[in-house]
Amino acid sequence: MNVALPDRLSRQLGFIVESERLKSVLRRTSPIHATERRENSAEHSWTLALMAMVLAEHAEGNPDSCKVLRMLLIHDLVEIDAGDTFCYDLDANVTKAEREARAADVIFGMLPEEQSLEYRSLWEEFEAGISAEAKFANALDRLMPTLQNMHNEGGSWREHGVTSALALERSRPIGVGIPTLWAQVQTYLVEAEQQGWLTATPADSSPFPPS
Amino acid sequence: MNVALPDRLSRQLGFIVESERLKSVLRRTSPIHATERRENSAEHSWTLALMAMVLAEHAEGNPDSCKVLRMLLIHDLVEIDAGDTFCYDLDANVTKAEREARAADVIFGMLPEEQSLEYRSLWEEFEAGISAEAKFANALDRLMPTLQNMHNEGGSWREHGVTSALALERSRPIGVGIPTLWAQVQTYLVEAEQQGWLTATPADSSPFPPS
Repeated sequence: MNVALPDRLSRQLGFIVESERLKSVLRRTSPIHATERRENSAEHSWTLALMAMVLAEHAEGNPDSCKVLRMLLIHDLVEIDAGDTFCYDLDANVTKAEREARAADVIFGMLPEEQSLEYRSLWEEFEAGISAEAKFANALDRLMPTLQNMHNEGGSWREHGVTSALALERSRPIGVGIPTLWAQVQTYLVEAEQQGWLTATPADSSPFPPS
Repeated sequence: MNVALPDRLSRQLGFIVESERLKSVLRRTSPIHATERRENSAEHSWTLALMAMVLAEHAEGNPDSCKVLRMLLIHDLVEIDAGDTFCYDLDANVTKAEREARAADVIFGMLPEEQSLEYRSLWEEFEAGISAEAKFANALDRLMPTLQNMHNEGGSWREHGVTSALALERSRPIGVGIPTLWAQVQTYLVEAEQQGWLTATPADSSPFPPS
């Protein structure tokens, strides 16, 4: 009763099995309502894809919504080998691109060739952040930790002493990909600073316009 | 600097925040390579959507691949209120449909009306299992726990004393949605019985054809 799987299907299943390891890559943020643990990059990827469905109408530049879903579903797979790089860890970010490019060779290289090339290209497009799809995907990737930290009393901002100036800088892609939300995000950050969840920036260099 | 969000966007963000609770709904299976914990329904949903991308070419009936992704991303949201119902728990399955329909009212009802109707309809289509999209989505939903249990020395099968007859019955949608994989799945189940991961069915009612 033994059957030999065609090589193509066998490679695809191997890729899926390997992808399971993304469930063990921990991010700095916690899910909303579950601050006793950090979330992993697999469930994070699900959230972003769900957000892309729900918020599609607010995206700038009319991105192809199906392509955005595909991009978000694979955008963090490189972390299986490269690990999650905390966005406020400046040292780790110096080596991030190189580590992730090597990791992309490994994970996408498991697939049949044309799929491998397609997924690699989708990931590179996400990283470049230039197309309408990549801008929207990047906006969601920045928006979700903001929502999580706002609902988790500062979450990873507070834990790591992030300043409001840095958080504002980090949030700018939200305004690029989802302009409708930009004023709201600035309001969140002001509130977070008032609550002490973000470290206040000195008054003479406040990142926020006077209210 | 306060801004009032339009009602529509406010409802959409409320839905996303509520969806975070799916990350706390635990399934019976563990991720491959991470048997020290059970997986949650959010990361499970990510896996199925990723599988739908990778295995699309093997789906029966040429389903719309973008619709399959959307269906899989929302297919388990009803578990936020209804909980995950273990497929081999016969008592819980009696009340499953009613509990999940009430839960669907709650979660999808948070969205603006036309999105609420669209998502509810997508979920009902998944549950009905009749369209090509639903058949493929259901096949993936059955395939993944099989892969996980095969890589986790029996996993939830062994833990709950599942028989090979029941596992075979439960697996049939895989053959419907992805015919190419059916022989392989049967091979997995025979191997699982030989390993003692599935409880052997008495010889005179073996679910497998003689080899």
